[in-house]
Amino acid sequence: MADYIDLHGAEQSFGDTEAQREVRKNDRDYVFHSWSAQAKIDPLPIAKGEGVRFWDYDGNEFLDFSSQLVNLNLGHQHPGLVKAIQDQAGRLATIQPAMANDVRGELAKRIVEHSFEGARSVFFTNGGADANEYAVRMARHHTGRQKVLARYRSYHGSTATAITLTGEPRRWANGTLDAGVVHFQGPFLYRSAFYAETPEQETERALAHLRATIELEGASTIAAIILESVTGTNGILVPPPGYLAGVRELCDEFGILLICDEVMAGFGRTGEWFAFQAFEVRPDLVTFAKGVNSGYVPLGGVVISEAIHDTFAERPFPGGLTYSGHPLGAAAGVATFDIFEEEGILQRVKDLGSRIVEPRLREMAEKHPSVGEVRGTGLFWAIELVRDRATREPLIPFNAAGEAAAPFNAVVAACKQAGLWPFAAGNRLQIAPPLIISEEDLVRGLDIIDAALDVADGYAAA
Amino acid sequence: MADYIDLHGAEQSFGDTEAQREVRKNDRDYVFHSWSAQAKIDPLPIAKGEGVRFWDYDGNEFLDFSSQLVNLNLGHQHPGLVKAIQDQAGRLATIQPAMANDVRGELAKRIVEHSFEGARSVFFTNGGADANEYAVRMARHHTGRQKVLARYRSYHGSTATAITLTGEPRRWANGTLDAGVVHFQGPFLYRSAFYAETPEQETERALAHLRATIELEGASTIAAIILESVTGTNGILVPPPGYLAGVRELCDEFGILLICDEVMAGFGRTGEWFAFQAFEVRPDLVTFAKGVNSGYVPLGGVVISEAIHDTFAERPFPGGLTYSGHPLGAAAGVATFDIFEEEGILQRVKDLGSRIVEPRLREMAEKHPSVGEVRGTGLFWAIELVRDRATREPLIPFNAAGEAAAPFNAVVAACKQAGLWPFAAGNRLQIAPPLIISEEDLVRGLDIIDAALDVADGYAAA
Repeated sequence: MADYIDLHGAEQSFGDTEAQREVRKNDRDYVFHSWSAQAKIDPLPIAKGEGVRFWDYDGNEFLDFSSQLVNLNLGHQHPGLVKAIQDQAGRLATIQPAMANDVRGELAKRIVEHSFEGARSVFFTNGGADANEYAVRMARHHTGRQKVLARYRSYHGSTATAITLTGEPRRWANGTLDAGVVHFQGPFLYRSAFYAETPEQETERALAHLRATIELEGASTIAAIILESVTGTNGILVPPPGYLAGVRELCDEFGILLICDEVMAGFGRTGEWFAFQAFEVRPDLVTFAKGVNSGYVPLGGVVISEAIHDTFAERPFPGGLTYSGHPLGAAAGVATFDIFEEEGILQRVKDLGSRIVEPRLREMAEKHPSVGEVRGTGLFWAIELVRDRATREPLIPFNAAGEAAAPFNAVVAACKQAGLWPFAAGNRLQIAPPLIISEEDLVRGLDIIDAALDVADGYAAA
Repeated sequence: MADYIDLHGAEQSFGDTEAQREVRKNDRDYVFHSWSAQAKIDPLPIAKGEGVRFWDYDGNEFLDFSSQLVNLNLGHQHPGLVKAIQDQAGRLATIQPAMANDVRGELAKRIVEHSFEGARSVFFTNGGADANEYAVRMARHHTGRQKVLARYRSYHGSTATAITLTGEPRRWANGTLDAGVVHFQGPFLYRSAFYAETPEQETERALAHLRATIELEGASTIAAIILESVTGTNGILVPPPGYLAGVRELCDEFGILLICDEVMAGFGRTGEWFAFQAFEVRPDLVTFAKGVNSGYVPLGGVVISEAIHDTFAERPFPGGLTYSGHPLGAAAGVATFDIFEEEGILQRVKDLGSRIVEPRLREMAEKHPSVGEVRGTGLFWAIELVRDRATREPLIPFNAAGEAAAPFNAVVAACKQAGLWPFAAGNRLQIAPPLIISEEDLVRGLDIIDAALDVADGYAAA
């Protein structure tokens, strides 16, 4: 049992088995968990988090390569974020959305100024799902059209419209809750839907496919195309050169709006304020959440172009929520901008990504027969695990569970055993540590993954 | 210009015209507001809130009879809530939903224990809208049926399913985003849809109407009936005797689930933990938000019956969100339970409602020809303003705006002029002050409303 004094003066102890028992008991007795079969889970009680690490009650330490749910961009208990929340709680914890509020306005200003040319305002929400719901609503009212095109291999949230936009298995059991959504294929060279062999070919064919979808669905019925600028949970898919610019051209040609979902990729994950900024593209609407304040307080929102803002100048926008522009969340958002500047976060991410992560992953790809591909940008990477590099058969089948997922689960278990909490998704180990991670911790985490890949190699053709 | 030292040691000043100008400028330049025509609003910059009052930068003081958006049940800057947030921010601001967390489990336990017999667990959300989205999703999966019956004159939130459930004008511009929703009429004796003349008759006929709706829609297609236990924004409609019990009986007869939306009425507003507890009814699902922590941190949730929980024991619930069970919101929720006990909130609400509010409103109803009816319970009341008591013609038409709404707006302006911020809805002045309000402030607010009704009387037949 290890005792320690935490950063903020409260004494805590690990291995406090009575406290741990109570946390586990209350959880199992009373808490209903997301996306889970409630009788099949045993959530780990967490005693403490600090920086890039968190601990269970037995003192087991985990290096967080998942930033919780890819939200904890500034790590656990960043003193600047903690102080901003404590100060704002003492000043004015909340005020209704119809009022003007200093931190709400200040955060909106910072976001608009760091987003895109022609951005006009921010509509604040509670998270990413409702940000996408409201962006789609704005697009429908602005264009007078009802359909929205969304990609397969995407996640856009879980409320009715957001889950229907989602292009992966979490949608399936929900049916079609928003009848105006149509899915299409995006570029993914490693598993190309278009039989492409080069990035240029993938871009060209993915754009031809999108054009065909628009023509066959009827351009005049399509309000918007929504896409994750860099796809997150579904594979860290960085758009190939020219793709996003090509989508923008199609949007312009057909009067369709472009919504960039930056819920996971935004706020530094790729080394930019917003991931689309690395590409030649200007969105009409941008949705965000997570990294805006590292999820210390629930907050999301939509950045709105001047033209769309003006649509709702004289006629009311038909949507709203009690906590829109919540001061506590906004204060943590303002602090996020300050900390990013002070700590040079964007530059760090670019540097660590290109100097440490990319070369090391390329080395692992050569060394481990179970690695089919590594891809990513900034501190946002995926290792695609396969049984056979030649056939690209994934280590486990698509959407595998239970016994069928055992080989992948063994790799994840090896990571956890060695003290690393990975971002595990499908047949991929993904890498998304807090952006404040030190070079030493980053290398240490990559070492653990490197070793865990030996487990995957055991299932792969040599 | 008035200086003062605030509760938490930070010095602030009113009439700080430069600060005020900046707040207003940032708001107008960058913030997109809920439910509004952006060019037609001029949000009031708020400098400070404390207890039942808030102030603009010119030092104008408002007694808050609306509890912001009927969420601020414990008033502004309650020291117990502020401390809980500050402490939790210093301990562990956030942790992902897949983990077990002490305050998350503790709050779930308290809520379950204070809700209904047979309650099993809590699924936490960010607010009321997503709570209703997920309650409907659970009902659909539990029953295998798709339709949901919801009442007219209701508000259930603004995301796709929630806004479709909503039975008032905010839904209109959104079309039908969830095709499984059917609306029916609830009891409202003053404007009875059933030509009833007594509460007993209204109950009997409203239940007959509901039975007919179920039969004509097809009981085997209906997953749930959702209703606000006491309707909030749409009129403070307290169910007449026997109505909720009758709805429960119909649910049991037809295998339909009952969802009580307690987002506005829950957590003490009516003098109960949950408003349904004053009636002979047991819900299957209860949704909450707002009062659970006075909206100091965005938080909502669904209380789930044992049977529904068990549906998701072996198969996964298809829904989730990054901030489910957020520790910062949960800590403020746990503190809310403590404060309610320590300050005897429920007893206060019952006492102030029956001893101060009700008799005074009945007196106003006799005195002012513009008052058609007063109704409510606890600290949750409506004054229905009419042009003519005989015909019950409302002071302004249903969903009036602009010039047509001028008579009502004049009453609201008179309240604000006298330092009271009312809860204005349709043709009604509604009353929902923080539950910590002193008897003196309550009487002072009622005095202001009494005087403002003279303005309404000017439009009413004597």
